[in-house]
Amino acid sequence: MPKRAPIAFESTRDKHDLLRRLRKIEGQVRGLQQMVEEDRYCLDIVQQISAMSAAARKVALIVLEDHLHGCVVTAVKRGDEDAALQEMVIVLDKALHP
Amino acid sequence: MPKRAPIAFESTRDKHDLLRRLRKIEGQVRGLQQMVEEDRYCLDIVQQISAMSAAARKVALIVLEDHLHGCVVTAVKRGDEDAALQEMVIVLDKALHP
Amino acid sequence: MPKRAPIAFESTRDKHDLLRRLRKIEGQVRGLQQMVEEDRYCLDIVQQISAMSAAARKVALIVLEDHLHGCVVTAVKRGDEDAALQEMVIVLDKALHP
Amino acid sequence: MPKRAPIAFESTRDKHDLLRRLRKIEGQVRGLQQMVEEDRYCLDIVQQISAMSAAARKVALIVLEDHLHGCVVTAVKRGDEDAALQEMVIVLDKALHP
Repeated sequence: MPKRAPIAFESTRDKHDLLRRLRKIEGQVRGLQQMVEEDRYCLDIVQQISAMSAAARKVALIVLEDHLHGCVVTAVKRGDEDAALQEMVIVLDKALHP
Repeated sequence: MPKRAPIAFESTRDKHDLLRRLRKIEGQVRGLQQMVEEDRYCLDIVQQISAMSAAARKVALIVLEDHLHGCVVTAVKRGDEDAALQEMVIVLDKALHP
Repeated sequence: MPKRAPIAFESTRDKHDLLRRLRKIEGQVRGLQQMVEEDRYCLDIVQQISAMSAAARKVALIVLEDHLHGCVVTAVKRGDEDAALQEMVIVLDKALHP
Repeated sequence: MPKRAPIAFESTRDKHDLLRRLRKIEGQVRGLQQMVEEDRYCLDIVQQISAMSAAARKVALIVLEDHLHGCVVTAVKRGDEDAALQEMVIVLDKALHP
């Protein structure tokens, strides 16, 4: 197993951006609950789910980018990248196949 | 444009089930915010996003199923299915390509 | 199980369009083999796979559209849609989660 | 732009494995053409497309793994990883959103 270093944000700004995106997704999920409560039109609900999933995919991409720049680069420089890369491939497999 | 009938749940139980699933997704999104706040390991965050997206996909599928059984069947019986099916294909396109 | 009627193309033109798209995808797969044979740049290969998958997704969407207009409408008119819709949902589940 | 090194297979066996997978996908695409020619049942066609897309996704994952172990590790060791990682993120974005 690779050393499970904490997420290495390029900057504090990145962390705020990620939290802002996640709060927006939380708002979308609450909006979905309200749509269901109010018996809204089904396809509008499905479309809103697609929008939420696209936003979640973007968050995953940002975190993967931070992971590459942080954990992966550090592991390679330590000459200890095998486990880090293997784990990344397992996570990519799930991300490509949600 | 098709008549935009409200979502036709097979039963009250379906609506409760959908709301229960959406509340669980809301919990997952809040959990993700906490993981980011606490600088947790990046790949654990990506994996949690994949789990959330899979749960959202399941909700979309349930709503599409309700749509088929409700709006689509009603439209066909009215002899007025062209717009309903066309709209469903547009939404499927987005759902297949989140 | 629903009656497994053959695919009901709206017209001969649709069938030709579908075959043309599939032949183009076959060309993309053969192009990929050549890229691998020639040790081409990895990310160009991944990008070409994404293009091929997008083309395959479009074909799936066209066939789902034909299915809605053909098999599903026919089943509803026969008052016998339950099995047809159930099967469609199973296939949608796989299509949304390739 | 990163140096666009050729794909670095871990071994000749990997290259053969990739070509074998791509030839199998080519067979699936040809099978799909035959299914359309023979007016086969629509949902069987959609299901076969899902199987083909899953096989293509696996190939993309293998190539991404080779890319991480080859190009990315080399770029980091050269201290020149910024462009390589940036390009990888662009390709991941497309792969996550086929």
